Amino acid sequence: MAGHDKSEWQHAQVEWNSVSAVRVGIIGLGNVGGGTLRLLRNNASEIEGKLGFPLEVSAVCSRSVLTNPSEAVSLHPKALRTPDWREVVESPDVDIVAELIGGTGSAKQIVETALAGGKPVVTANKELLAEQGPEIWQRAAGNGATLGMEAAVAGGIPVLNVLREGIAGDGIDALIGILNGTSNYILTEIERTGAAFDQVLKEAQDLGYAEADPSADIDGYDARSKLAILAAMAFGEQVSPRDIPLQGIRRIRTIDFAYAGRLGHTIRLLATARREPNGLRLAVRPALVERNTILAGVMGSYNALWVHGRGGDTFYYGKGAGPDPTGVAVVSDLMAAARDLRQAGGSVQRVQPFGHTRLSPHRPVSSGTEERQFYLRFRVRDRPGILAALASKLAEQGVGIEAVLQEPHFDKQDLPFVATLEPARRAAVEKAVETIKGLDFLVDEPLALTLEPTLAAA
Amino acid sequence: MAGHDKSEWQHAQVEWNSVSAVRVGIIGLGNVGGGTLRLLRNNASEIEGKLGFPLEVSAVCSRSVLTNPSEAVSLHPKALRTPDWREVVESPDVDIVAELIGGTGSAKQIVETALAGGKPVVTANKELLAEQGPEIWQRAAGNGATLGMEAAVAGGIPVLNVLREGIAGDGIDALIGILNGTSNYILTEIERTGAAFDQVLKEAQDLGYAEADPSADIDGYDARSKLAILAAMAFGEQVSPRDIPLQGIRRIRTIDFAYAGRLGHTIRLLATARREPNGLRLAVRPALVERNTILAGVMGSYNALWVHGRGGDTFYYGKGAGPDPTGVAVVSDLMAAARDLRQAGGSVQRVQPFGHTRLSPHRPVSSGTEERQFYLRFRVRDRPGILAALASKLAEQGVGIEAVLQEPHFDKQDLPFVATLEPARRAAVEKAVETIKGLDFLVDEPLALTLEPTLAAA
Repeated sequence: MAGHDKSEWQHAQVEWNSVSAVRVGIIGLGNVGGGTLRLLRNNASEIEGKLGFPLEVSAVCSRSVLTNPSEAVSLHPKALRTPDWREVVESPDVDIVAELIGGTGSAKQIVETALAGGKPVVTANKELLAEQGPEIWQRAAGNGATLGMEAAVAGGIPVLNVLREGIAGDGIDALIGILNGTSNYILTEIERTGAAFDQVLKEAQDLGYAEADPSADIDGYDARSKLAILAAMAFGEQVSPRDIPLQGIRRIRTIDFAYAGRLGHTIRLLATARREPNGLRLAVRPALVERNTILAGVMGSYNALWVHGRGGDTFYYGKGAGPDPTGVAVVSDLMAAARDLRQAGGSVQRVQPFGHTRLSPHRPVSSGTEERQFYLRFRVRDRPGILAALASKLAEQGVGIEAVLQEPHFDKQDLPFVATLEPARRAAVEKAVETIKGLDFLVDEPLALTLEPTLAAA
Repeated sequence: MAGHDKSEWQHAQVEWNSVSAVRVGIIGLGNVGGGTLRLLRNNASEIEGKLGFPLEVSAVCSRSVLTNPSEAVSLHPKALRTPDWREVVESPDVDIVAELIGGTGSAKQIVETALAGGKPVVTANKELLAEQGPEIWQRAAGNGATLGMEAAVAGGIPVLNVLREGIAGDGIDALIGILNGTSNYILTEIERTGAAFDQVLKEAQDLGYAEADPSADIDGYDARSKLAILAAMAFGEQVSPRDIPLQGIRRIRTIDFAYAGRLGHTIRLLATARREPNGLRLAVRPALVERNTILAGVMGSYNALWVHGRGGDTFYYGKGAGPDPTGVAVVSDLMAAARDLRQAGGSVQRVQPFGHTRLSPHRPVSSGTEERQFYLRFRVRDRPGILAALASKLAEQGVGIEAVLQEPHFDKQDLPFVATLEPARRAAVEKAVETIKGLDFLVDEPLALTLEPTLAAA
């Protein structure tokens, strides 16, 4: 090992003295920063081969940087190690800044300071981009600095590169994403094992797949931030995450998979965006997805994105999180920024984040007008007349029941069953559910899910 | 309609007179050329929004261009229309040349002439790139001209962009592709309907999914050309298609899907590439694929690519052919070439096709050393002692039978059954099959397929 390390150093020495390296400063050495450093080291020769010049880590910033020898050992001895991000951003030996600490506090300052100085930035920070993306993008464009953000959405899947360049020639009409790996893991574990939500969540927490406070994942906030960024890339519209309707997965029960299965469906937390005549229709909600589709085949902590373009449908799949997948996104962005620095003779933003964006923020169209087939799951204390009461409340809003499904069940005090509805407007269904909530035979609120229209069978 | 056309012309007039448009010459107005023209027109405002300047078709070349008004009508009146490709390539009003005629005759001259003049080229020509890619790439680099080739592999799926840029930071260890839509359509139709190969092929020909001479598709040549290009992009190695072992799907029978199903598998024509210590192992062959994987879910004429990187697995899926999907690839490449022209101040090749290529062609490692689980399907005239005879021939090569499967079957003169083998080297299995071929109870040659190792369950 010592010998191996030595030859690494010798190699690094050569590069260090050469004028050819593009030099990277990495701020934050947590999971993503650690994965990025590891990939930069392990793939160094391929990266240099692809670029025609090496990428060199010339500075790192982290509280742990001076005490964590496992990361420090991979750095060149002359690399700057500091707990102060300003030293990295302002160093003349740093050509590109990677902001990998997350959050909207210091991270925002780091990104803004670097861009203000004309330095390209690569960031994995979805909260920051979703909340303040337009401002940050304008600052990048105004200062002629590249902003790389592939790692912020769907980790190891290069969906932003695909939307910005790979299929740039297409007009996008709809996106359907599975953008939160934790939620998908929980849903597919419930499906696979038949265990209860709370038990699967606890296991996910024990395995490190879910946070101690799981709200950002299971209540859909994380997926919503990512959807706002994707909508910007695909449709060129500024959308505030707060304007996107949100429903999490806490109320999904094991029995819902049984009923969904009887309907030939399963359940996934979907982030959807559709272009409609009056604007974009966006939502993050659990929905019934047909079993024989590629989207239903997305299991465990994987992410996926279905893109419905005018020129055709495409689908992208991979790990949405983790040091290595996210590190690949960061390193690929660093390479793109380095190419722009070298080949364009400056820090030009070669591909605008979304050049066709209107200047004013876009308010998505109301989800109330959406017409869908709905799945309504009830839990009731059994007694005669329940169905008549429910049908009557639905009929008051002009909503008809298509079919009623009931699995064998023996607890007459908590009897689950499902009604599928004839296609109806969401507003009408939600209003009916509001009036139904008050009925005394209900054990809890009805759960309303849509049957997601199939874009294309697998 | 007349009014609509007029306003289109007015818009075009403005652009024509502006210095801002990047001007495209399109050679070949067949399916792909027609799709490209249509997308350039229908998505014009989005393309201009994304680029910051418009793309303008300033010249077209086709035998039909003067007689086909449905395409001609979408062109600006001042656009050059000619049956002579040299006029397009040499026109001072053409900034980028799109070669969309295919084949290796005039197409090669077109590409070489344009590159020699320093003009960026976009091509959909997989035969040309697979056969003479390294030459053409060197010519492009030598003349500082961009070469776009996304449309040559997996049509509407931007797999080359993904490998060259989206996940450039990763090191790729293996690729598994479904790269020929016609073959996949035929296999999945046999699977779905239980119809015989010849009948499904004929239906595919009637539907226009297969050519009158289907050999390029069903014998695997098309997939092999694409695999050679992908291997170059992913691994930086020049591989001649002729060096890639090839097996087509002609011998796959309905009964094979029944046996594969009993083993929990289905059958797909796979183009595979793996990095091994001694080089690349490449092949195009039908193989058994586990049913509960995303790859097995690729149905009909879709294409797909599974990428196994050190940093994670990703998967890409979409239509591999057709005017619109392929048109999206061409237009996206035109946009990239236009960006390079504008922003780099010249016709620079921003992303080298595969910068880490060795100069000498790479001979893939022999497939004989590959150790796999094999599926051997026999058709025999039933009589005692058959299994003993087969087991003995296999044992002579050191190959053991793991299990024998036999579906109920009533034709004792043509009785199909399957032996699955213990993991064995391909060379040994192929040698055993050679000696078995001579046995008098066989109705035809045994069919040997591998059980493809699962990269990751869906």
